[in-house]
Amino acid sequence: MPSYDPNNIFAKILRGELPSYKVYEDDKTFAFLDIMPRAPGHTLVLPKAPARNILDVSADDFAYVMKVSQKIAKAAMTAFEADGITMQQFNEGAGGQVVFHLHVHIIPRKAGLPMKPPASEKEKPDVLAEQAKKLAAALAGCTNGSPPSGGAAGSSCGLP
Amino acid sequence: MPSYDPNNIFAKILRGELPSYKVYEDDKTFAFLDIMPRAPGHTLVLPKAPARNILDVSADDFAYVMKVSQKIAKAAMTAFEADGITMQQFNEGAGGQVVFHLHVHIIPRKAGLPMKPPASEKEKPDVLAEQAKKLAAALAGCTNGSPPSGGAAGSSCGLP
Repeated sequence: MPSYDPNNIFAKILRGELPSYKVYEDDKTFAFLDIMPRAPGHTLVLPKAPARNILDVSADDFAYVMKVSQKIAKAAMTAFEADGITMQQFNEGAGGQVVFHLHVHIIPRKAGLPMKPPASEKEKPDVLAEQAKKLAAALAGCTNGSPPSGGAAGSSCGLP
Repeated sequence: MPSYDPNNIFAKILRGELPSYKVYEDDKTFAFLDIMPRAPGHTLVLPKAPARNILDVSADDFAYVMKVSQKIAKAAMTAFEADGITMQQFNEGAGGQVVFHLHVHIIPRKAGLPMKPPASEKEKPDVLAEQAKKLAAALAGCTNGSPPSGGAAGSSCGLP
């Protein structure tokens, strides 16, 4: 497997050299919206540590990324009134990976609506900005213990 | 979300009421081959704890399932001489879930070979038995610190 390339576009986003529609950040992870979403609210969750994919990431970094991914999935159910969540994670080109910094796809789904093909259509900036705000708010609602907008009291989606 | 149904087929596999092509087992997880693989070596990783999907599983159980999934992915790269790994995890029917016990799909991929459609073709029992043995051996090779067959010395795919 080739080694990690610090010039991949997600590394540039992590360093703030490229913009993103940020959803969540802590000391070990960063999450933002896919600008070519397969469904509204399609989010990518990344470790901040340089890792190409699951074949080189540390087990603890990966486990933490997945914990955050779970919380984002729960918050996305509320924020986007989703009926389900499709998670995907691609490793190496043969596995479907296009950008070589480990990332997890969280795709909120509505019953009866198929996903768009990968990278088929760029979403409008104002739509992405609004969706990022909505998802971040749902996550923040969970974090401070109060229910997210429309969510049930006692929701268990607090961040790890 | 409906509550967990203990009569789903994966619960029956976990209880030993239905057979499976076992790849790995510890006190918290169980992994076996998908009998309708999307590619050779397609493996499912489950928590033993009853959980419908990521929306109700405990964060720690989920993180542990993902750690085991990572190790299986690494071992599958060796066992099936794969060029990449596609991971998928479906939640609720709208998210693509068919069996309602949390499971992670680990799909070894070869460059240039698309995945078969979901549940499109049942693999032959002797092929599945052979593949399960091969993957279990690669995992065991990692566990005891010696390299898996064909793998490099010092491989880091030991189980958590």
